[in-house]
This record gives sequence, C-alpha cells and structure tokens, in this order.
Amino acid sequence: MKLTFTGIDNIPMVEPGDDLAGQIVTGLAAMGETLQDNDVLVIAQKIISKAEGRYLDLRTVEPSDEAIRLGAEVDKDPRKVQAILDESNEVVRKRPGVLIVEQKQGFVQANAGIDQSNIPAGDGGPDDLCLLLPVDADASAEQLREALYERAGARVGVIINDSLGRAWRTGTLGLAIGVAGFTALEDHIGGNDIYGRELLVTQVAAADEMSAGASLVMGQTTEKTPVVLVRGYQPREPDDPAQRGVKPLIRPKEMDMFR
Amino acid sequence: MKLTFTGIDNIPMVEPGDDLAGQIVTGLAAMGETLQDNDVLVIAQKIISKAEGRYLDLRTVEPSDEAIRLGAEVDKDPRKVQAILDESNEVVRKRPGVLIVEQKQGFVQANAGIDQSNIPAGDGGPDDLCLLLPVDADASAEQLREALYERAGARVGVIINDSLGRAWRTGTLGLAIGVAGFTALEDHIGGNDIYGRELLVTQVAAADEMSAGASLVMGQTTEKTPVVLVRGYQPREPDDPAQRGVKPLIRPKEMDMFR
Repeated sequence: MKLTFTGIDNIPMVEPGDDLAGQIVTGLAAMGETLQDNDVLVIAQKIISKAEGRYLDLRTVEPSDEAIRLGAEVDKDPRKVQAILDESNEVVRKRPGVLIVEQKQGFVQANAGIDQSNIPAGDGGPDDLCLLLPVDADASAEQLREALYERAGARVGVIINDSLGRAWRTGTLGLAIGVAGFTALEDHIGGNDIYGRELLVTQVAAADEMSAGASLVMGQTTEKTPVVLVRGYQPREPDDPAQRGVKPLIRPKEMDMFR
Repeated sequence: MKLTFTGIDNIPMVEPGDDLAGQIVTGLAAMGETLQDNDVLVIAQKIISKAEGRYLDLRTVEPSDEAIRLGAEVDKDPRKVQAILDESNEVVRKRPGVLIVEQKQGFVQANAGIDQSNIPAGDGGPDDLCLLLPVDADASAEQLREALYERAGARVGVIINDSLGRAWRTGTLGLAIGVAGFTALEDHIGGNDIYGRELLVTQVAAADEMSAGASLVMGQTTEKTPVVLVRGYQPREPDDPAQRGVKPLIRPKEMDMFR
C-alpha cells in the first residue's frame, strides 16, 4: 500500500464567502492534477472558518462576571475568556495561561479552538480579531464534499483538521474535527490476526491518523499549505448513519477516565 | 511538499536475533527501491520486540499479592498484571478490563504496551506468551539507523511506533515510542506567522504525526506491513542531545494536568 500526501500550496488567502471547492480544483489544475474518485482532501480548519466568516471582534464582546473572574485566574483577556465560554460546554481544566474546555462539538481542547494566529489584524489592533471553529465541522465537510463532486465529478473523502494538544504527551497533532465520506473510526473488533487468533480491541482512529500525516505536509503556518490531497486510500462512508462524521472519535464524558 | 508513505510488506516473520536492517534493505530491493539519504523508516514496535526476543511466557511469572488483588479488581490474569507492573513505573488509572500505567520509558498507555496479538502461541496455549516493549526504544531506533547506514550507505531517520489510546477521543493512533535521526518535537516558538505576528505556542509532535500517517499504511495486523518508508521529509537530528529521541514528546508528570 502506498499513500501520497500532496500539499496544495497555491490556495489564495481565503475570505468570507469564498468558494473553497473552486479554489481547490483550480489549485490542483495549476499543479497538473485533477480530483479522482477515492481521493481524500484534508483541509485546515482555519480556511474553513475563514470561508464561513467565523471571525469574532473582541471589541464586541462584553465579558460576564464569570469571565472576568476566570480571566484573572488564568491570566487571559476576559473578553477572550467570554468567547471561549460561549463556544464551550464546560471548562475541563484551568491554570494560569491554560484553559482547556469541551468545545460545543465535543472536542476537548485549549481555548475552544479559538485562534488569533494567521488571521489579519482587526481595525483596533492585532489582538482584537479572532477566529472560531466552524459551527458544525461535519456539515462543513459534507458541504465541501458535495461542492467538489459538483465541480470535479469525483467522489472524495473530506477531513477538516486542527492542531490539538493532548494529555500525557507534548506537542500538538493535527486531528480530525469534521469528516465526510470517510470512516473516522475503523472498527476491527472480531477480526482475526495473522495467526488466526481473534483480535479483541482494534478500533483505529483512521481519520486522526490521516489528519496527522497531512498536518506534517501543512506545516505550522497552515494557510501556506492549507489543503492536502491524499491518494491511495479507499475511503468509504459508514453504512450506519450513526457512525458518520467525526462523532465516533469523541469519547463520551461518562466513558472518559481522564476528565 | 509531497510525502509518500510506502508499505514494505515483504518482511519475513521476524524471529529473535533477526537482522532487521538486512530484511528491510532486501524487502526494498524486491520492490525495486533503495534507501536514500533523508528517507524515514517507521517500524512497528512489534517486530523490534520480536527481533530483540522480548517474549515473556506467563507460565514463568509468579504473581505477587498486589498483582493477585489488582487482577481481581480489573478482571485480568494476575500473571499478566504482574508482567504489566514489572514493566511500569506506576498505575495511572484502573477499572474492570482497563489498566493504564506509566510504562518504564514514560509512555502512559494500557497494559504497559504488552501485547498478545500477532505473536505465535506458546507451548502451553495461546494465552501464555506475550510480547513486551523494547527495553529502550530510542536505543533500538538508533541501532537500526546505524545498521541501515552500514547496509545501504544512507542516512535515514528511524521511528518505532505503537498503537496507543488517548484521553478524550476513541480509537488508537500509531504514535512514536522510539526515535533516531529525527526531531520528534518541532519547536516553532518565536517564529512568525504568515502575517508576521509572533507565534506563541507552536510545538508540533512531528514524530507522532509521521507515525500516525504510517500507521494507516501498516493497517491493524502490523506484521503484514510492519515497515513504512516515508520519502519527501527532511529529517534532522536535533543539535541539542537533550532533544534527541522520543523523550521530548513525553510530558513530565508534574506538568500534566490529566494524571
């Protein structure tokens, strides 16, 4: 098996309302490539959020008493703390400089994924504008998948990834936050190993593994190479609608020994 | 940037004492490939452990009172619990069916990485033989790197990976447990984003991202494709010896909010 991860590095700076599918198809064409059935595209969350206009100007945010108190506790701008709380279900851990929450879509991550790097400065200065995650990253992935089919006639998988931290280990990994046309969690329970013995625990976070590999190609300043074409994998939509999207990768809080 | 992940799927079943470097070079040659400078090889932990003879026959294990008590608590064979404790610094979480420990090399993982799948059955039955992690996976990676240089004359990076679970999200990821000739944690602190603004937190777990991508190619039954050649990356050994190996990816316990 051979997988190729090819960065599409000629996507223009993305503005709200941009047609990402068109930009991707054009970017590929300039590289002499066309989309094929069973390709997978891994897209940086940042350009999805930008295309969806998910900017928030902190000058419009009125911090609550809770945000002011929490901001003092963790040494963060109370307006940004308010924005994080507004994007979250609950605070999971906090300490000075660190605020780890369950983002509304279920992702345990720092600052609810709100980011201020690689976005243009707001009129009021570089610290006023920030970028939120897509409202529903699975829906964003599905829409892009449909748009790519209309544009290019190819049935592809789409994964939206973001750089997330983790317990126990340092450094971020590019992990999936939105998935379409791809089985995020490959479930091999009941399969056999090479000696014919039953495999007991074999759930593999395939969408995260592909996201992580693509993240290497994106590099850190993700708008430079915000889209990666993965060829050689055979993505498939799960038959069970409940297994579609990124949700199978989210461990329910009541099943999580580390929350 | 383009990365290719190519599975080397013609490695023979690995036996203790096998010359893995030779098997890899031979396997590549059968595919019409030769190693080049700056290639990276990602190797499944399982074949490293097999080559190093890291088998343990549970019939030789005498469980302590602690292992017997803990085995009853988590519903595991007390001999296997003893083996896990022997390979661990401490138990991190436990509940029936689950024993998460800090493995001696610092990895927080289930069962100290001890595995019974894809290994031949012991004489006493399929449940007697198990496979431990390498004693020092960084040293194993470095030895393999040197052996590959002697065999093929190419300076490559070597990453040993294993399937690890994680907090918050379901499914395993192939993550690095041993690293040589490769900067495991890429530290971009102080760099600039595409708008020239200083990037504050940009430590990327590059070795884990590459391990995860390679894991997709290995698939689950890792002895079928236990080695993946990654081409297109420019691996480099960190100048600072303290930053070499996998250790920079291990978050010290006192810095971990989730232990």
